[in-house]
Amino acid sequence: MHVRPGRSLAANAAKWMFMPDNDIVLKRIRGFHVGGRRRRITGFDARPRSRVPGDAPVAIDMNGDHMVGQLYAKEYLQSDARFALPVLLWHGGGLSGACWEDTPEGGAGWLDYFLRDGCDVVVSDAFERGRASFPPYPQFLSSPPEHRSLEAVWHHFRFGPGGSYPDPLTPESLRARAYPGQQFPVESLEQFGRQFVPRWAGTDEFALRAYAELLEKIGPCVVIGHSQGGSFALECARRHPDLVRAVVAVEPAAAPAGEPGAGGAPHLFVWGDRIDDNPTWVRYRDAALRYKQRLQAQGVRADWLSLPDHGVGGNSHMLIMDRNNQAIAAMVGGWLRELFP
Amino acid sequence: MHVRPGRSLAANAAKWMFMPDNDIVLKRIRGFHVGGRRRRITGFDARPRSRVPGDAPVAIDMNGDHMVGQLYAKEYLQSDARFALPVLLWHGGGLSGACWEDTPEGGAGWLDYFLRDGCDVVVSDAFERGRASFPPYPQFLSSPPEHRSLEAVWHHFRFGPGGSYPDPLTPESLRARAYPGQQFPVESLEQFGRQFVPRWAGTDEFALRAYAELLEKIGPCVVIGHSQGGSFALECARRHPDLVRAVVAVEPAAAPAGEPGAGGAPHLFVWGDRIDDNPTWVRYRDAALRYKQRLQAQGVRADWLSLPDHGVGGNSHMLIMDRNNQAIAAMVGGWLRELFP
Repeated sequence: MHVRPGRSLAANAAKWMFMPDNDIVLKRIRGFHVGGRRRRITGFDARPRSRVPGDAPVAIDMNGDHMVGQLYAKEYLQSDARFALPVLLWHGGGLSGACWEDTPEGGAGWLDYFLRDGCDVVVSDAFERGRASFPPYPQFLSSPPEHRSLEAVWHHFRFGPGGSYPDPLTPESLRARAYPGQQFPVESLEQFGRQFVPRWAGTDEFALRAYAELLEKIGPCVVIGHSQGGSFALECARRHPDLVRAVVAVEPAAAPAGEPGAGGAPHLFVWGDRIDDNPTWVRYRDAALRYKQRLQAQGVRADWLSLPDHGVGGNSHMLIMDRNNQAIAAMVGGWLRELFP
Repeated sequence: MHVRPGRSLAANAAKWMFMPDNDIVLKRIRGFHVGGRRRRITGFDARPRSRVPGDAPVAIDMNGDHMVGQLYAKEYLQSDARFALPVLLWHGGGLSGACWEDTPEGGAGWLDYFLRDGCDVVVSDAFERGRASFPPYPQFLSSPPEHRSLEAVWHHFRFGPGGSYPDPLTPESLRARAYPGQQFPVESLEQFGRQFVPRWAGTDEFALRAYAELLEKIGPCVVIGHSQGGSFALECARRHPDLVRAVVAVEPAAAPAGEPGAGGAPHLFVWGDRIDDNPTWVRYRDAALRYKQRLQAQGVRADWLSLPDHGVGGNSHMLIMDRNNQAIAAMVGGWLRELFP
């Protein structure tokens, strides 16, 4: 139990103002791109190709000016917001902002929950993911991206033990091979796999720069980041304490190397189950734990929500879309309501 | 003047129920992926790489099961829809669904207009674009994608005459080099370029298959497609007359090769200005015109809205985000209201 004494996350959850049956009443919905700049990119062959079926092949010259480094954001502005600050949702590696929008079973995602909680919400696609687009390689990025297979996520996202990815793949075999009590809807693994997007390595500074520009555009806010997005959220909270007023890092895959400043925003770390069964996650968790201690040494509030410690078992790395994702959103939302009543 | 006698598009526009100052009241917003299937993809090297800064390099094995062929869709369901059918917005080549969400100047896009008109709206990212993701190449797709430069769109999208892309690029030089009376906000060319996404050639059947699955999921609907999305919309209307109840092709880049059936849904073709200055667009328009005649020979209603014929000049290929994009949406919306009062 790492949560501070006297601060019950279950009690906080009751402060959440989620109204599942109410309409979502917005004064504006807009999508936009922010960050990045114009770069002259050359080194392309001008290969003739047919862009339109039946039309003659045309020489396509890609050498020239390209916009590089931007992210995509979708902003939902409530007609009558019931929370003080916009909530920014930052996805993890190999995914896009779509990960907040529904679950593999077609249920509601955290976007729905925080909208019905009355928050303004901004969902983004980080640099080189989804609608943010990616620059060419090898002309700009040096290497091809990683395309994650279903096998690769099976153990890494803690759906099942190492080596248990089933063959043949059926809903039944997936259920049988998963960890007992698994909260992720493993029989919908294919539907989850439809939302994977390629990712590059070594592009963090691009992503962080675009996120900084997003923060400047939005102003003071709360950032909830998952996995790699949680790492970006921690780093942005460290670099921009004037803009990030609270940060929720859901299973962050890395912690900042730099020192946190005094007077930083409150932090909440959220962890699912079976961390100890997976050495990679033990490493990530321990790095986060050390960073939490450094935050606390600076007098920064840093709370630690390990779900199994609260009797909530079976959560995978994808706890934002696990079957009990609403209950976890309520704990996070309650923590935020306690900070900003 | 190709519009049928007695059917004034200006008069129809007055039927549009766009309410700019009203809130957008939704019972549900959800994003999801549809279409595609699991494919075993091999031929990757397992190169060790560091996925997380400071963490040890890991062997990343991408060989295995991947989902290929899906599209991404975002569905906005009105609490109290004021239009009979959902409106599907399909983007053009080199873009994603973000093209409907705002303008390069930060103004409202057609998503906003049709939501405030009271329609349920579905915005999609086609196969291999944006949040739909793309499969690896050369392991699955045979070639690299096209990354469109700012130069490449300048004349192709009819912002300015051939060879007039300015150097240096400044808001002033862009304005000076554009066609006189240009409705596209050319000084925001960089902002427009931020939303470009790579595109592949030769993948139309993947895109069409996923769109067919989207249509089956949504049911009877109206499809508004721009450019390549307009071509897909025409082809889907031909293949799925039971589902596509009206189709609006905004500057379609191709027309179906196959014969349209009798009893197809009403068609509207929309064209901007300066087509005759650009041989590519003359070819595209003439192909669409021949298809319109084939539709009419089958007794299918097919209307033709060339904006300059209605005294509306200066529109680029990106008329959905030109400065007068609301007036054009009103003409399209009015045409739909006349069909489905």
